Amino acid sequence: MDGILPNENEAEVSAGEDGSDQDSSEALSTRVLPGFMELEPRAQLAFERMKRTIRDVYERFGYTPVETPAIERVDVLLAKTAGETSKQMYRLSRTGQALGLRFDLTVPLARYVTEHYGSLSFPFRAYQIGKVYRGERPQKGRFRELYQCDVDMIGTDQLSLMADAEMLAIGTAALSELGVSSAAISMNNRKLLSGLLLEVDPNVNTPEALRTIDKLEKIGAAEVESQLVGLGLPQEGVSRLLSVIDRRGAAEEILSFLDSVGMRNPLFHEGVRELRELASYVESIGVDNSRYSIDLSIARGLDYDTGTVFETHLENAREIGSICSGGRYDNLVGTFSSHKLPGVGISIGLTRLFDQWLRNNPLEAASSTTLKVMVLPMLEDLRPAAELASFLRGCGVPTAVETERAKLRNKLKLANRIGVPFVVIVGEDELQSGKYSLKEMQSGEQRTMTRAEMAAYLQERV
Amino acid sequence: MDGILPNENEAEVSAGEDGSDQDSSEALSTRVLPGFMELEPRAQLAFERMKRTIRDVYERFGYTPVETPAIERVDVLLAKTAGETSKQMYRLSRTGQALGLRFDLTVPLARYVTEHYGSLSFPFRAYQIGKVYRGERPQKGRFRELYQCDVDMIGTDQLSLMADAEMLAIGTAALSELGVSSAAISMNNRKLLSGLLLEVDPNVNTPEALRTIDKLEKIGAAEVESQLVGLGLPQEGVSRLLSVIDRRGAAEEILSFLDSVGMRNPLFHEGVRELRELASYVESIGVDNSRYSIDLSIARGLDYDTGTVFETHLENAREIGSICSGGRYDNLVGTFSSHKLPGVGISIGLTRLFDQWLRNNPLEAASSTTLKVMVLPMLEDLRPAAELASFLRGCGVPTAVETERAKLRNKLKLANRIGVPFVVIVGEDELQSGKYSLKEMQSGEQRTMTRAEMAAYLQERV
Repeated sequence: MDGILPNENEAEVSAGEDGSDQDSSEALSTRVLPGFMELEPRAQLAFERMKRTIRDVYERFGYTPVETPAIERVDVLLAKTAGETSKQMYRLSRTGQALGLRFDLTVPLARYVTEHYGSLSFPFRAYQIGKVYRGERPQKGRFRELYQCDVDMIGTDQLSLMADAEMLAIGTAALSELGVSSAAISMNNRKLLSGLLLEVDPNVNTPEALRTIDKLEKIGAAEVESQLVGLGLPQEGVSRLLSVIDRRGAAEEILSFLDSVGMRNPLFHEGVRELRELASYVESIGVDNSRYSIDLSIARGLDYDTGTVFETHLENAREIGSICSGGRYDNLVGTFSSHKLPGVGISIGLTRLFDQWLRNNPLEAASSTTLKVMVLPMLEDLRPAAELASFLRGCGVPTAVETERAKLRNKLKLANRIGVPFVVIVGEDELQSGKYSLKEMQSGEQRTMTRAEMAAYLQERV
Repeated sequence: MDGILPNENEAEVSAGEDGSDQDSSEALSTRVLPGFMELEPRAQLAFERMKRTIRDVYERFGYTPVETPAIERVDVLLAKTAGETSKQMYRLSRTGQALGLRFDLTVPLARYVTEHYGSLSFPFRAYQIGKVYRGERPQKGRFRELYQCDVDMIGTDQLSLMADAEMLAIGTAALSELGVSSAAISMNNRKLLSGLLLEVDPNVNTPEALRTIDKLEKIGAAEVESQLVGLGLPQEGVSRLLSVIDRRGAAEEILSFLDSVGMRNPLFHEGVRELRELASYVESIGVDNSRYSIDLSIARGLDYDTGTVFETHLENAREIGSICSGGRYDNLVGTFSSHKLPGVGISIGLTRLFDQWLRNNPLEAASSTTLKVMVLPMLEDLRPAAELASFLRGCGVPTAVETERAKLRNKLKLANRIGVPFVVIVGEDELQSGKYSLKEMQSGEQRTMTRAEMAAYLQERV
């Protein structure tokens, strides 16, 4: 059935079962592999526009592009445990060194910053829009090749919580410019959650307990409660913890509530203080308060998150998971270097978001081209048409020539199907007179003009 | 020494030697793998500009973006033999199906067109700018992860030679806008070359002989001659062939020469006729005749090329190989489908080109940011600075806030190092008066103005 999942338990795979030596007996299939997104031109153009929107927002906030290879050493990829995702790593076969495909953009950024430390200026504002690879079981919202759009600010020694606020501002700006109106970014603080856990049981295995809390949305409160109790936490404390983090309301209301719950753990109070400082910055940085909220149940499964955490769920599609997540990490480079580089980042899961967007937005009417004009030659000699097209392109108007012999009717049909807004016919009459008929496809309107007039007319409409 | 080359002769590798199971005993290295390009911010920004230039040119000619996955089934990747490159394929380990990383963008395009045939309009104008993977021995101009910028026009049943001319026009426009002035695209026709070979020996193994001729630049005429004789071709005929293809001169001169050499082979004459027709189109499509030439020795190593072939060498760096290559293929989809889809394409090797460009263009003076202004807070409270930055961004001015506590001198040093053109200080005085000092970093000039005046001033300079 599902033949391309990397085997998570490698020890059980003998060499003979290695799929790379197996001959497929199926007929040659041109279908894209399950879990991979491949788009038709209309959808691809929409995807490109989204990618550009995100990039423009990141650059407007002053972030600089970074691009790391898709292939990294396995020991680098696994140096920072990144929760479940690292188990889904694709490995390359038969290379002298153990190599794998990156499963996120944070680990490669850590390597990048360590390696280029001397030539970077800190705080370093970086973004990377690129593909990552995960051997997930394909399902709605889960892809094996997916675009992540990461933006990170990395300081030396210290980094103001204004940086966390900036992430929230970037995330909301990007989502809003992408037309995603049904999503508010939820924020929380891992210190606050860890403090709550320590208050319940000073000997708690915090990372494991946080991973359990992270499953709240997926498995429900009763199951989380039973799993936390299974980890050795006292039943009563767990119930109390779950009732605290279930609290909903406006940011200010939740912050007051947290002051009133009577916890003593200092980590808890540090988390509350950070959350309050962050909230105080958010407004100044231009984020409308309808665009974010505090959700005390957000834990995130990643081990390197330390303070602020972000998640974003689409109201109408919570089941696909978060489309914009991130958080604070106290030391990005960890095992790679002795520098201490605290950072905070946020990442838009563009493939997942686009997939969901496409389900709600029929593209039938959209154009599948960036062309403005198609020149239709009605002469045996294609050169006059090619010359006109070249002239128009020289004036900045995206133009193509229809080069194949076909009846005018069929050429118009093609232009219509592609969605070109204008066509112009080049025949004997046009050559003689130096005047051309420019036809607007949608209205059917025709205008007769010289090529210079046509260029001026189209430039205004490009 | 060189541990990440995929083993070209798989039969000799036993499971125990599979590098992916080997533990590296080296310390954790954060160096980028050999053969992979990773750039510092200044260089990355230059690279992004080049990528954007190429995309803009492709779109101006009316080509639509396509994006295929980096991972494909091995049987798909190997369905069309693509010369040496297919031997350098990276495979994934332990997946149920045999999967590999794409080594070019032509094979994935063939699969894409077959799979989406029903929803495409033909002639289909497509471009793809993406990374491909090749287990090459790293050396100057050879990378293991490299960007290819492919542009292809695919027809049904037939495709005019005007399409080949369009490729030449796109290639020259892109190179010229990239500032690559030392390169002219060379063109040839494989039918012409095959005809010459058949004239020498009707039983010649044409693909193998063409691959030998393709090595002319690398190994020299004497060695090619001896290898062709080794393939069983008569010495005299080989000498004559090599003297014909050595001919240099203007396009019209070479075409006349080809008419005069007294060959009888019909394929040769078809090749000459195609080359003449192509040359007749080139001028009409706006290509200056200094930007291209005919080079009869160009063969290309790919088996799917059938007619026109293109190659481009940098005058000052011929050793890195062609930076812009392509050609005509009679049937793109071949083994994938029963449709006949002739196509022609050209591809810019951006990674190779950029690497060479970087060697000649020191980036010290360039900026490492797309920022226009950095706001430097001089108050304990960061919020007024954040508000000003948010206001400027709202006016379309890329702006960041310096969030860390530091002396003004150090903040200015940071701004200078990043290359931000303007800074503005927010202190007590500015808050009181509502007037800010905008400092232009390069000239040191300062202007005092309100935030609205500042936005207007900067908008003009963005």
